[in-house]
Parts: sequence; C-alpha cells; structure tokens
Amino acid sequence: MLLNIKYFYIMMEFLFNPKSVAVVGASNKEGKIGYEIMNSLIASKDRIKIYPVNPNEKEIFSLKSYPSISSIPDEIDLMVISLQAQYIPDIIEEGAKKGVKGAIIISGGFGELGGEGEILEKRIEELSKKYGIRIVGPNCIGVFSSKSKFDTFFQARDAMKRPGDGPVAFMTQSGTYGVTLLELMERHSIGVSKFISFGNKVDINEIDMIEYFKNDNDTKIISGYIESFRDGRAFYEKAKNVSKEKAIIILKAGKTKEGQIAAKSHTGALAENYSIYEGAMKQSGVITVDDIEEMVDIIKILAKQRLPEGGNVLMITNGAGPCVVTADEIGKSKKLKLAKLDENEMDKIKSVLPEFAIVSNPLDLTGSATPDWYMKVMEIIKDSKNVDIFVLYFVIPNAPIYRNISKLYELFSKDWNKPVIAVMSGGEFTENVSRNLEKMNIPVITTARRLVNALEKIVEYSEWKKSHN
Amino acid sequence: MLLNIKYFYIMMEFLFNPKSVAVVGASNKEGKIGYEIMNSLIASKDRIKIYPVNPNEKEIFSLKSYPSISSIPDEIDLMVISLQAQYIPDIIEEGAKKGVKGAIIISGGFGELGGEGEILEKRIEELSKKYGIRIVGPNCIGVFSSKSKFDTFFQARDAMKRPGDGPVAFMTQSGTYGVTLLELMERHSIGVSKFISFGNKVDINEIDMIEYFKNDNDTKIISGYIESFRDGRAFYEKAKNVSKEKAIIILKAGKTKEGQIAAKSHTGALAENYSIYEGAMKQSGVITVDDIEEMVDIIKILAKQRLPEGGNVLMITNGAGPCVVTADEIGKSKKLKLAKLDENEMDKIKSVLPEFAIVSNPLDLTGSATPDWYMKVMEIIKDSKNVDIFVLYFVIPNAPIYRNISKLYELFSKDWNKPVIAVMSGGEFTENVSRNLEKMNIPVITTARRLVNALEKIVEYSEWKKSHN
Repeated sequence: MLLNIKYFYIMMEFLFNPKSVAVVGASNKEGKIGYEIMNSLIASKDRIKIYPVNPNEKEIFSLKSYPSISSIPDEIDLMVISLQAQYIPDIIEEGAKKGVKGAIIISGGFGELGGEGEILEKRIEELSKKYGIRIVGPNCIGVFSSKSKFDTFFQARDAMKRPGDGPVAFMTQSGTYGVTLLELMERHSIGVSKFISFGNKVDINEIDMIEYFKNDNDTKIISGYIESFRDGRAFYEKAKNVSKEKAIIILKAGKTKEGQIAAKSHTGALAENYSIYEGAMKQSGVITVDDIEEMVDIIKILAKQRLPEGGNVLMITNGAGPCVVTADEIGKSKKLKLAKLDENEMDKIKSVLPEFAIVSNPLDLTGSATPDWYMKVMEIIKDSKNVDIFVLYFVIPNAPIYRNISKLYELFSKDWNKPVIAVMSGGEFTENVSRNLEKMNIPVITTARRLVNALEKIVEYSEWKKSHN
Repeated sequence: MLLNIKYFYIMMEFLFNPKSVAVVGASNKEGKIGYEIMNSLIASKDRIKIYPVNPNEKEIFSLKSYPSISSIPDEIDLMVISLQAQYIPDIIEEGAKKGVKGAIIISGGFGELGGEGEILEKRIEELSKKYGIRIVGPNCIGVFSSKSKFDTFFQARDAMKRPGDGPVAFMTQSGTYGVTLLELMERHSIGVSKFISFGNKVDINEIDMIEYFKNDNDTKIISGYIESFRDGRAFYEKAKNVSKEKAIIILKAGKTKEGQIAAKSHTGALAENYSIYEGAMKQSGVITVDDIEEMVDIIKILAKQRLPEGGNVLMITNGAGPCVVTADEIGKSKKLKLAKLDENEMDKIKSVLPEFAIVSNPLDLTGSATPDWYMKVMEIIKDSKNVDIFVLYFVIPNAPIYRNISKLYELFSKDWNKPVIAVMSGGEFTENVSRNLEKMNIPVITTARRLVNALEKIVEYSEWKKSHN
C-alpha cells in the first residue's frame, strides 16, 4: 500500500513536472488548438524537452516534428493530445507501449456526445487501466504548475495572464471555470500552487487530486468545480480528513434536473442526488459555494489572512451606507455577530476622534476621515477580546482618503493581530487601490452581501476545524 | 393643485440646473470639504455663477469670497453648505430671507447623533416649511445632473469619474452608495440623468423625487437606496403608478434589528417593519434588490436592452461550465425557463456547425468556436418564437475568440430583435472586452447566479407591466 502511494505520487509528478512532453496534433497554424498548446509550452523549452508530433510538418515552432509518438527516439514523460476523438485511443496505446507515463487529452467528442463518443471514452479508460498510463481528460484544458512554470493551455499568455506562485490548488471539470478562476486569481494576486482541468475524467478525478493535494507541500487551500462525483462517499470521507488541515472549497453543479441534463452533455456527468452530498460535505468541513465569485471571495480571505477565532465583526468606515446593509446581513446570519466594544475601549476611541464621529458598530468616522483616524482606532483595539474580524470600509474618492492614499497603504502594511478585510467598490481609481491592497495581501471585497456570505462560511469552517482537531 | 405641481417642478429645477450657486464654507485648503466642492463646481463656472462664502478669505479659486450669504449683491438660486452643524439653521434663514430657492446641506452632525443634533435638524425642517426653501440633506453629497454637467460632490474628478448622460436616475440616503453607484455606472457605460443624495432628508425625500422623476423626460429608469420611508404607503402608491411606465429599483436597508440600529445612527432613520413594505413593493411593480452589484446588473440590462417578452432563455457558449450552473439556477427559478428550440431550428443549426458541437440548450459550440459560429446560429434563430432572451457566454482567452476579436464586436453590433446579454469574467483582457461591449450597449454579466437573479426580476417586472397596462 505504501509502495502504491509512493508510485501514485511519482506518476502524478509526471503530470505537473515532466521532463519531456510530446504534443500530438501540434500545428503551425495560429488559432488551431495544437498551435496554441505549443505556444504555451514553448515558454518552458529551456527546462522541458518538447516534441511536436504531426506527420504533415517538418518543423513546428522551430522544433523537429515527428510523424508519430513511437518515432521519437527519446523517453517521453507526458503526451498532450489535440486530435479528432476517433484517433486518440490508438495514440494512447502507442504511447503506453513506448513507456509514456501520462497523457492529457484536450479534445472533446467523447462521453459528452453519447453513442460512438462514449465507446471511445470507454476504450481509453480500459487502456489506462491495462497499461497504467495516467490520463487527464478528455475534454479539458490540462494542467498548470506555477512552480515549474509549466502549462498546457490553448489560451495565449497575453489573453490570459497566468497567476503567480501561492497556496491555492484548483481542480475542475470545466475548462471555462478553470480559465476564469485562474484569471481572477491573477487579477486578485492570489497565488496558485497547481491546477488541473480533468473534463470527463476517464481516469484522474477529484479523489486522486484530493489525495495528491493533501500531501502537496505547496498547497494549503484546495478548491474545485465538480459536475458529478466519481464516488461521492469516497470523496467526502477523504475530504473530512483533509479539511482538518487544509480548507476545501467546492462548487458543485448539476444540482437540479436542468443542471444535470446540461452537465450530461458537457462532461457526460451522471445525475445524482445533490441534497445527500450537501449534508455530507457540511459534515466533512467542506465549504460549498454556488458561484465562482463567491469562491474567489472565500479563497481570497483564506489565502491572505489567518482564520478568524470567532464571528464578532467590527466595521470601521468613512461612509456608513454599506455598513447598514452589512448590519442587516449580519442580523440574518447564524455565525456572525456585530462585535460589542466595552466602555473602556469606546472611551479611548472617543478621545482620539472628533465629536461628530459615531463610536458604535459600525464605527462611522464620517466622510472627513483620513487614514490616520483609522490607524488611531486600530491601535486602540487591535488586541480587543471583543473583536474577531476587522472590516475596514472605504469611500476611496472622498478627498481625505484620496489625497492621503500613501497613508492608507501604511495602515494596511501593519499587522493588526486579527484577520483584516477591506471593503470598497467603484471606478478606476478605487479599482487600482483594490488591486494594490490585494498585492499587499489584504483581501478586498466589493459588497456587504458578498462580505457577510464569505465570512459566514469561513467562520463556520473555523468552528468545524476547532471541533475536529 | 396643478399650480402647486408646476411650482414644485420650478423649485426642483433650481436644484439640478441652478444659474447661481453660493458655496457656504468654501475653502482654499485642499482636502477640506469646502475646497473639494468648489473644485467640483468650478468646472461649471462658464454656465453657472459661483459665489464662495467665507469671511476669512478674500478670494477662493480666484473668485471673490463673500463674508456672508446676505452680502452677495446678486440673486442666488442655490446654496451648498459645508459648515459645523450649529451654524447652519441661521444660514438657512438668512438665505431664505434673501430669496434663495434651495439649499444642499453637505455637513453631518444632525439627527444621526441624536440630542442637540436632532434639535438642529428639527429647526431646519421648520425653516424649510416656513420659508418654502427646499432643502437637500443634511448629511449628504448633494446632486448631479449629467445634462447640465453640474455637481456638488466633494470627490475630485480624477478620483471619481462622472458618468455620461443617459436614462437612469438615482436617489440615495447614503452618499457612499451614491459615489459607488455613480462610479459603477461610469465604469459600465450606463448613462445617468439625475442623481440626488438626500441623507437625513429633512425636506426633499423619495416621494418628491419619484414625483419629479416620473415627469422628467431624461429619466426612464428610477433607482434608489432608502434607509427608512418618510411615508411608506404614499411611496408605494405613487410607485405603482410610475412603474407602469418607468422601472423602479430599490435597495432598502434597515430590514433587521441590527440594520435598523445602524440606520438610526447613519441617517436618523426610524425602525419600520420591512416585511410589510416588501409585499407592497412587489404589488407596485417595484424591483427590490439586496445589494449594489445586483442593482447595477439589473439597471445595466434595463438601460441597454429592451424588456424581454417572456422568460425563455437560450444560452450559446464556447465553454459550458457556467451554462451548467446557469441551468441549475434556472431550474430553481419561477420565472425563467430553458428555451426549447424546435426540430426545424435544431436541424438548421446542425447544418452550419461541426459535428462535435452540442445543439441543445446550452448550445455548446465548444472551445473551437469563432465569433462567426455564434453569428451563423443567431441568424437562424433571431426571430424564433421559442426564445425571449439570448445569453451569449464567452471564454474570451480561447484562441478562436481572442484571435478574432473584431468579429466578436461585429456579432454584437447587429440587432438581434430580442434582448441580448453577454456573460464573461476573468482577467485584464476579458475585462477590456467587457468594457468595450458595454460601450456598445451590450450588458455584460459576470456569473451564472448574477445573470439568473437579474433576469428573474426583470421578467417578473415585464409581466407586472403587461398586466398593469
């Protein structure tokens, strides 16, 4: 068993950190999938040997093109395949016989189409079992590793910036959500460890990946988009174990009849009763989400800040409207409360603020507030036992903030001993401040509802983790 | 009564389109509210006569500074006041006696503080009634009119770009939500007719404004953020009448005990039973929202596209994941359905697409799709009786889209006879495409859940409107 596990990791390493890659269906024609994959891979050519395979070309991206996988004289760790579905089973067999360790099948045209496609998919599954070659896909965009700077995407780097190195792993049945999530991670300065898009998941699936990410030192947070579980019970039993250490966030689609029909023609997903899984997920400490933005909000807070000890939220603001809506949302919440400062704390705060400031929760510094006012208040309550989470709201265009923006960054460069979240939303200038704060590891959330929703789930996970460790 | 109404409109015009404005509390000190208001107003100095009032200065922004409002030799339409609360009632009386028609009180320090502040607020209310001077505020950011290019904001133009001219009016008790909404409108190329922030609304309130916007030819869509209704019954009875012509979208805060306490210390709002209003709003055709982003999504669709005739949604995509989640959300919806194309339409579509495309709903063109594929499909079904709303999903970084982006704009430059919405989300490149599409009057929504939520409410309003006209 230990030997098996060890072998499993060795095989997985070939997917994320191969030394040699053959691109079957490589092309010289811009816009073709086989061109774009080469275009992405070629950036790694100093570290990875790349072998284009296409019988109709002599050279592709200035590299010798081979007529077939077996005609390559060297050892190949990984094949990336973009070809019509009907040719692929033979390529897998040819590669497996040559000793290729893994194959990523980008092409669709399999289980999602039913009929002939389903038969082809079944054959690939059998070949994978017979030869032990690990398969990613079909019908996917492949893998990305920020450490080895390796990816198999058919999305050009100017169209889709790759995120930097960091703690978040993502696995997905949807390439689209893969692209979107990676783009959002890059935009919000959230680092990614490893990414895998496994589409119809004829072989590698969420259970393999959770096992792999559990022991992957680069990964601290595991996220995923799943249309159907290969084995729901196995997944959540594994998840229960992993959640004790690493947060797991799952967006599960195919919850309704309508969604299940759509999932079937997307990745050939089988219908299942979601409500059963939902309860099981909760018991396993898995954070479930319904939306990609919700997922990014939660990941952002988890990746950039420590876990909150409890649900007492203190709001400090220079504009109270969004805090009123936040108070409403907290009023409906089961896990969050408006933090209550004690008299001593309130008096100290009043002594450093002008009379018209409203010392309550929200603590309304009013539109006259400079970043220094926030700083003074934070100095007083950073160690308060009454607060678990600081939420700092900003109307950035208000002159006293806008004209003292470097002080704002100073405020956020300090460690305030508890998780700190900034809330702001608006135009270009505000957007730039948000991006700068996120580069400083301050999560920025745009609305009251999104804030409370994310915090609610994070505090619930924090409680689960405490009671299971 | 008719005369009264006529007088009402004349008075309101002085707020949005004054010929002369006095700034009481004007300042030469950058960062002071009285400086920033001058900085905003000065852009209108060719059309509007501006009179700074400050006894300690000779000149402000190169204009003669007057020691008091009564010392100004000319007629004044409007005062904008930024002073400590205690001085303001006297200024109002002085102005009213001079014949000033309206006053915008930016300063806080009134009802929201209780005690002395409440007494001051009461006095201003009495003065307004006694002299007939119309008051905006206190505790607000004032007004904006895109047509007369006039605003009283203390947010500089580089920090907060003003939106262009267009059909949307916004009224708000929160200046913060005012700033955020205007910034989001600018960012998403949604034109604004008029904007008013009325804070503690000692005089002008949501009932005046709905009356005014009803007959304002520049306004087609009315939106608002309200913490407490001056007179809930009067509001929704008026709203019921206005909704027949113009959509009304309201974000109501202070729904829970927690929210009401926060609203009380924000704008002195009184607690009220929200559940009563919620039902009344629904019956009056008012679209209620819980979140500023939800509001912008709905306004965006209403402002840029015609109202849908029904709830049959057709999705076309080059990446199915988000469509599966959309199908899930539609599965839970009461107003929306997955549009069912008939056999004839399906056959025609199949004849123009490659075999691996999945002709269903979602119509999955796959990652190989160029904008031309969308175009071919749209040509076939633009007049389909089975579809009320077209939703076009895009993974923009996919090479066949990314490398043919001008064709994408061509696709959206045609009139497809029904509302068309684009869905996309991601990084910088995708974001730029979104902004360009929105400039072309195509609403872009970022996630499945936000799409379905916005459409659900829009279709509900469309049905209400039909049954009430």
